[in-house]
Amino acid sequence: MVAMELDLGRELAREADTKIVLFVMDGLGGLPHHETGRTELETAYIPHLDRVAKESVCGFTVPVGPGITPGSGPGHLALFGYDPLKFNIGRGVLEAMGIDFDLRPSDVAARGNFCSVDETGRIIDRRARRISTEDSGRLVAGLRDMRVDGVQLFVEPVREHRFVLVLRGDRLSDAVADTDPQAEGAEPLLPRATSAEGEATAALVAKWVDQARKYLADKAPANMLLLRGFAKRPDWPSMPDVFKLRPAAVAHYPMYRGLAKLVGMEALPVGQALEDSIATLRENWGRFDFFFVHYKYTDTAGEDGDFDRKVAKLEEVNEAIDSLVELEPDVLMVTGDHSTPATMAAHSWHPVPFMLRSKLGRADPCTMFNEVELQQGLLGTFPAKEALPLAMAHAGRFRKYGA
Amino acid sequence: MVAMELDLGRELAREADTKIVLFVMDGLGGLPHHETGRTELETAYIPHLDRVAKESVCGFTVPVGPGITPGSGPGHLALFGYDPLKFNIGRGVLEAMGIDFDLRPSDVAARGNFCSVDETGRIIDRRARRISTEDSGRLVAGLRDMRVDGVQLFVEPVREHRFVLVLRGDRLSDAVADTDPQAEGAEPLLPRATSAEGEATAALVAKWVDQARKYLADKAPANMLLLRGFAKRPDWPSMPDVFKLRPAAVAHYPMYRGLAKLVGMEALPVGQALEDSIATLRENWGRFDFFFVHYKYTDTAGEDGDFDRKVAKLEEVNEAIDSLVELEPDVLMVTGDHSTPATMAAHSWHPVPFMLRSKLGRADPCTMFNEVELQQGLLGTFPAKEALPLAMAHAGRFRKYGA
Repeated sequence: MVAMELDLGRELAREADTKIVLFVMDGLGGLPHHETGRTELETAYIPHLDRVAKESVCGFTVPVGPGITPGSGPGHLALFGYDPLKFNIGRGVLEAMGIDFDLRPSDVAARGNFCSVDETGRIIDRRARRISTEDSGRLVAGLRDMRVDGVQLFVEPVREHRFVLVLRGDRLSDAVADTDPQAEGAEPLLPRATSAEGEATAALVAKWVDQARKYLADKAPANMLLLRGFAKRPDWPSMPDVFKLRPAAVAHYPMYRGLAKLVGMEALPVGQALEDSIATLRENWGRFDFFFVHYKYTDTAGEDGDFDRKVAKLEEVNEAIDSLVELEPDVLMVTGDHSTPATMAAHSWHPVPFMLRSKLGRADPCTMFNEVELQQGLLGTFPAKEALPLAMAHAGRFRKYGA
Repeated sequence: MVAMELDLGRELAREADTKIVLFVMDGLGGLPHHETGRTELETAYIPHLDRVAKESVCGFTVPVGPGITPGSGPGHLALFGYDPLKFNIGRGVLEAMGIDFDLRPSDVAARGNFCSVDETGRIIDRRARRISTEDSGRLVAGLRDMRVDGVQLFVEPVREHRFVLVLRGDRLSDAVADTDPQAEGAEPLLPRATSAEGEATAALVAKWVDQARKYLADKAPANMLLLRGFAKRPDWPSMPDVFKLRPAAVAHYPMYRGLAKLVGMEALPVGQALEDSIATLRENWGRFDFFFVHYKYTDTAGEDGDFDRKVAKLEEVNEAIDSLVELEPDVLMVTGDHSTPATMAAHSWHPVPFMLRSKLGRADPCTMFNEVELQQGLLGTFPAKEALPLAMAHAGRFRKYGA
């Protein structure tokens, strides 16, 4: 399939009185259970999802590329129509988004780790024995007292040994290299500029790290810190601009709200249960024409290696899916951002089940929503970034290309 | 599908305690026999290969692109993860590799043909009536006596009218145009530089050709020669560097050993029978984590148009495949570098049967290894260069992309 680029999307997109819903079950795809030979979707009792499959064109998406296991960022960006190999989000920004930090366009964010060093300054544990979130929080409070002239600093706890450092000021640059040498036995690196542009910022970071070193010296095992993924919030073409959509995100977790905001969606306030998502969707139905609805718990169950819980979560979605159908979106897509097979207890590269329900689909033989049945799907296995263009077409929102 | 670039591979690859075997049956794919309507694979009795198919995810690879018939170089490079449209090997280098000439990085190699010219110097036969390998060898011996100041020259016989010319010296360039006008009735071209950089080398070649012309003048039908494909051994990123693999080639023919060495494999000494390959594989099992095993005879039977012999060769592989499975590689791929249908007696563009056996594959309906059954395969028809990334993923050797 031809890669759909944003410029082409911009050329073709037009407004229309139609609505698109993208329902993402995080970590949807699975693998056969060792005993039963059936995947999570094959095991779950999901008659309502199966009925939607019967009414849909079906297939599998490849989030990033063959064999590539995506993180949550690339997996979602692809579904929003953004080539995840071209649109990269720095790790610092993702981490800041994950804790709902309100990053400004000129801010520079980095991911921080507390680590352990020996008396010669060499790293003996890059994760400071994974100190507790509580202990980490106390150290972060201490780091917040440090000042560096010419820049405002934010230190925010994340979890265990992890925190976020944000620099706010004029003319900051993210051209700063990691201080994390990614190897034990080595000393933490000095913050160095990766280009001339980054020199002033690297010098500010160096001053801060120097103070932090002194403060942490007697705080073993967390007696030093490492920084990586210096990044600014990217300034990307937005979905309203490119696709002429009024898009909204119905997502509870900060990371996904942040991703949605990066592409110009409005992140609606929503509770953490699926019924909250449905209620939010219903309440805002008239205000938007594209809805990204995020369901997290299929992924957490998969990551925990809990096959049965993942099955139960799929059945929970099954119970709710009719409320989405009843809203009569012109296009309803049900898919995942990547696979998270419970048997692997991790994200994976396996293509992700996908279905698109609309009045304009061709006949498709699939009558069930699972990894075996969808192999018959009309859409085959295709790049996830092509899902949005397909939705645009089925929603009458792409004009003809060429005369 | 997204093109997998080596840079991305390098970013994602990590070491792991897993093993990958790539078993290549040269010219594997076929076409239906005119009488029976069954391909070579459908005709062969191959229950062991069928069982591997049952345990694998299956599909077809496209070596270079739709409709493109690959030579051995591109077909193999794709399977090694190198885009064959980006990684080109000059013909002179391929020819030198085919005779096991130990080409140094600074050498320039060209493919040579003896040809026939008339009394006015125009070409009347570009192949000198395909003189015998023996006659050709005598002429090569004569050419070896010629000296040109400032360069060391090697002339090596290949077969019939073909030979290889290698220039060894300082600052040689391969920016030299073919002297073969590719048309009878024309005169051989003078060796001309294709850029300023090639001028010195072109002058050296011109001196040599001048002497050769005089020497050959009375040797009709081989009374002149043509040179083409001036090339240096390319300096490519290696598989150890990009994919963090310790790769070995179990291949008997010089061409394939040469190709493997170009991407950083160690070419193990091996006899020419399939059992020799298996023995070599077993002996070196602990020393490497990627094995390219090459089986030539399916291709030679196909090129000879010998349907029955190709069937017999497939059955020979069938008998041996269990010895590979018993080594318990984490990933076993069985495929070909291109199709060589016996009915065409030539390489072809047809997609090539492919199967990948691992514990992390999805359920796949294929129960037999042939061109008809594999159409149901989960992997569909995909670029051959994506096979290695898939193998890396199934072997746990790719880290996550993005956070």
